[in-house]
Amino acid sequence: MEISEIGEFGLIKRLTQSIKIKNESTLKGVGDDCAVVQYAAGNRTLITTDMLMEGVHFDLVYTPMKHLGYKSVMVNLSDIYAMNGTPRQITVSLAIGKRFKVEDLEDFYAGALLACEEHGVDLVGGDTTSSLTGLAISITALGEVRPEDVVGRDGAKETDVICVSGNLGAAYMGLQLFEREKSVYYDQLLKEKDPSKVEFQPDFSGREYLLERFLKPEARRDITMRLAEAGIRPTSMIDISDGLSSELMHICEQSGVGCRLYEERIPLDYQTAAAAEEFNLNVTTCALNGGEDYELLFTVPLTDHDAVSQLEDVRVIGYITAASEGKKLVCRDQSEFELKAQGWNPLANQD
Amino acid sequence: MEISEIGEFGLIKRLTQSIKIKNESTLKGVGDDCAVVQYAAGNRTLITTDMLMEGVHFDLVYTPMKHLGYKSVMVNLSDIYAMNGTPRQITVSLAIGKRFKVEDLEDFYAGALLACEEHGVDLVGGDTTSSLTGLAISITALGEVRPEDVVGRDGAKETDVICVSGNLGAAYMGLQLFEREKSVYYDQLLKEKDPSKVEFQPDFSGREYLLERFLKPEARRDITMRLAEAGIRPTSMIDISDGLSSELMHICEQSGVGCRLYEERIPLDYQTAAAAEEFNLNVTTCALNGGEDYELLFTVPLTDHDAVSQLEDVRVIGYITAASEGKKLVCRDQSEFELKAQGWNPLANQD
Repeated sequence: MEISEIGEFGLIKRLTQSIKIKNESTLKGVGDDCAVVQYAAGNRTLITTDMLMEGVHFDLVYTPMKHLGYKSVMVNLSDIYAMNGTPRQITVSLAIGKRFKVEDLEDFYAGALLACEEHGVDLVGGDTTSSLTGLAISITALGEVRPEDVVGRDGAKETDVICVSGNLGAAYMGLQLFEREKSVYYDQLLKEKDPSKVEFQPDFSGREYLLERFLKPEARRDITMRLAEAGIRPTSMIDISDGLSSELMHICEQSGVGCRLYEERIPLDYQTAAAAEEFNLNVTTCALNGGEDYELLFTVPLTDHDAVSQLEDVRVIGYITAASEGKKLVCRDQSEFELKAQGWNPLANQD
Repeated sequence: MEISEIGEFGLIKRLTQSIKIKNESTLKGVGDDCAVVQYAAGNRTLITTDMLMEGVHFDLVYTPMKHLGYKSVMVNLSDIYAMNGTPRQITVSLAIGKRFKVEDLEDFYAGALLACEEHGVDLVGGDTTSSLTGLAISITALGEVRPEDVVGRDGAKETDVICVSGNLGAAYMGLQLFEREKSVYYDQLLKEKDPSKVEFQPDFSGREYLLERFLKPEARRDITMRLAEAGIRPTSMIDISDGLSSELMHICEQSGVGCRLYEERIPLDYQTAAAAEEFNLNVTTCALNGGEDYELLFTVPLTDHDAVSQLEDVRVIGYITAASEGKKLVCRDQSEFELKAQGWNPLANQD
């Protein structure tokens, strides 16, 4: 169905009619000049926002609209967890080109609402408009946190233990796989000219985990819950969107400290290692700079070392030092390098 | 200066370094995974968001970046006032193409921060990334309101008086002027081929007010303040972004009522009327459907009729009826028409 058949208000009605408010704090959702929310007395509000542009942040050749909706929401929820808060509401703004149908937008919303459902979040507003070119997505998430629970990037102290959840580099390898298969497909298309004659089956067997890490990242609420249950309060926390190296440097710079990160401690999935070898890439470099992991990187006091070591899916990867000792990566052969932020930089890389 | 010279983090630092937090409620601004805010105990949070796309919502041929920054913020603040709240924080996300320089972004931010300054609002976060094509802007505003002060679109009651602030149709006529001069310029350019040989002076004399209404709209905080001082609480309120007709229909539909709107009461500036005549347009149509006025449309109980009539820059334009009586426009000759929403619809008009 063409969007012009139902117009902006018709489209918004269609996309939002199934929404049921889940949070007590959501007093008014879609349908007025503003959404209205009210958190428990004394609690603080967290706000984060991310913009995703077609051709820069996502490629619709291998990204289904439903996955795109899910991921766009998840990357925002991840920022709320990274402040040790609980996400409550999101707004979703889309600017869409002429080639999109009502069904495409319904798929996007289905994915976005699934992510909301899993995290108990209400979609309370947004904007839907047109774009002369590609798809633009802008999502803002609001979260709630008790004042004493807020964890920023600036609280890491000397001797603190550096921890990370899950494993790193998998999403980056997933992206490499998609890009490779896309090239193979385009090569065939160039030869055949007629798309209907291209018999193309992408070869992803045994690599499903990597594709899923790229297409369907999960915000790590489970980690912040486990930390709270174990009575461990991180001194600093950040989510890994640009890459471990870049994020650890943010913590060090904002906390005024240094660090020692141990290469052998960096958690990797075997599929990530196997794919890196296949692509002739250094797997540590992928884990340090790949980005889009959406794992949590955090520091805890040394006294919590034993407790944190016992948490499921959390790995101790180094410790915080004085700023004067620099930000060091200690390699498997005990050689040391200064950490560099080579993570994804959309503005520096645009040429 | 090229943006790639300083990268995303360098650019954000440069754009946000002059920001000074003005609100007690802003506990943490730019620089972490989330901004952190806390309003006075018991108060509610208002959230609104708008997306503006180059070529759809603005034309950089006649929109200076500083004005664009100012306007992008103002249209969001206007939504907060339309709920009878006080804006406190905004986030600003930009996706920029290669042709933009650091100085362009600095101009945009200068305009955005000027709007913030005038309304006591803090810029607390956002996202800056690249676009393969045009400029995309997404702004979210947060506001604070006491529970008893919230005014939605759904509270209008039979016999309520319909009021509007300022005058209508001026921004639309400003846009027509800009579009006309742009056409004249392009015609000359086509003849001359060489841009440096085109001696072009746009003819805007005596029309400055219309251009300003289009380029630099003002969110009507003064109106909500005057209403509060006079002890008048609107039963419903909305800001006029798409056009008086469309907005009044929203109030009627969400309140389950009808209305009688009097053509002769619609406030017009003489420049709007003069320009409409010059363009051979019906000035009432411009006022009803032009959009981008960012005036406040609201209803008050009949008992407040005298009090509201005395407010500066507020005009009574009709009254609310039973839903069964329909939504009527009463013309100067006493003929009656059903109101139609012909306001700007970015999705229906895209072909």
